[in-house]
Amino acid sequence: MKTRDKIIREAKRQLNEQGFDRVSIRSIADAVGISPGNLTYHFKNVDTIVYELYMELVEALSASIQEFQPHKLSTQWFYEQTVKNYRVMWDYRFLLLDFVTVTRKNRQVKDHFRQLVAMRQLQFRMFADQMIANGIMQEERVAGLYDRFIIQTIIFSDAWLSDALVHFDEFGDRMFHFYADLMVSGLVPFLTEKGLEEYRGWKASKNDPPFRGYPSILGKM
Amino acid sequence: MKTRDKIIREAKRQLNEQGFDRVSIRSIADAVGISPGNLTYHFKNVDTIVYELYMELVEALSASIQEFQPHKLSTQWFYEQTVKNYRVMWDYRFLLLDFVTVTRKNRQVKDHFRQLVAMRQLQFRMFADQMIANGIMQEERVAGLYDRFIIQTIIFSDAWLSDALVHFDEFGDRMFHFYADLMVSGLVPFLTEKGLEEYRGWKASKNDPPFRGYPSILGKM
Repeated sequence: MKTRDKIIREAKRQLNEQGFDRVSIRSIADAVGISPGNLTYHFKNVDTIVYELYMELVEALSASIQEFQPHKLSTQWFYEQTVKNYRVMWDYRFLLLDFVTVTRKNRQVKDHFRQLVAMRQLQFRMFADQMIANGIMQEERVAGLYDRFIIQTIIFSDAWLSDALVHFDEFGDRMFHFYADLMVSGLVPFLTEKGLEEYRGWKASKNDPPFRGYPSILGKM
Repeated sequence: MKTRDKIIREAKRQLNEQGFDRVSIRSIADAVGISPGNLTYHFKNVDTIVYELYMELVEALSASIQEFQPHKLSTQWFYEQTVKNYRVMWDYRFLLLDFVTVTRKNRQVKDHFRQLVAMRQLQFRMFADQMIANGIMQEERVAGLYDRFIIQTIIFSDAWLSDALVHFDEFGDRMFHFYADLMVSGLVPFLTEKGLEEYRGWKASKNDPPFRGYPSILGKM
């Protein structure tokens, strides 16, 4: 593995496990087994590494949008994409957990992210239009409703991880599925009878227990 | 003002402006003009003050639920309550911004918050049932959908502030209204024709420009 890749991989591990405050050029260099001077030959400072990791995350999440095929759109497809994306986000959790801090320190990330969200809004709008064309999503009942729904969905996608760290005691599959289920259920009120039929059939096949809220509370009530 | 109140007020100011890392018993004591020893007579450590501030926030937000009157329920009422609550949350923004850190350091806050969310879920469910009884909200089309919608709403309410710090350049009225509008629009797909009529009338009276997404991006496109 190239030194550059080792640095990135080690920085991600430390940032996820220890948070920003405890990660420095020195702590990364020590773990990789190089001198701080050698490290700064590759990356000027920790912020530069954070930007690199942010771009890695963005690319990984973009992959699933590129795979998009119009005829495949269904609640099941969204669910599976969401679980996949949430696993990727978990792998870069320090970014989602401290995103306000990251964007405060790093103007490049903030500007990039704002433009990314604007682009996502258009892409998701395209999904919605395609689902309307496929007859699984209703025409908009109130002007502007779908654009608002899309922004809510984007906010939810950035927020689930922090929420999970407060409400879950164990982090893993169950958590990804809990939030993907919530995410997809946001689509349900907009489905046509045809879309609802697919949703109900898929739900029935999964045989989930009835939804009651967060598992952490249920165990104690 | 009592010393105890001065301490709380100064701690909140410092926490909001500087974040956890820079606030200590000493920095608060210095600003209040007492000795650290005198301060610890009132509060053992910063975590104890944080717990106190958390409880203040919870009480302030509970007030609007206590004021609830069944016949008043409307999208307009929800909007006005939401703007009011978001202002209160802004006043304690350090808590929402770093809530994962707070709950990691403070088991008392985490346990209290989990139970609070469980209670909110029941209260919001009561709102929904009342709105169904008033004929402004539809019966649930899919079992469990309203409970999921309620959890989404709670996640949104905890997440808007972090989102605002990334997407807004100026913090104030416009921001509170932007997120309250998003929050309330989550209700729209569940409204009956009667509910929708009230929503449309209220929206028309406000005469908002069409929704396009975050204002920060619009200025640059």
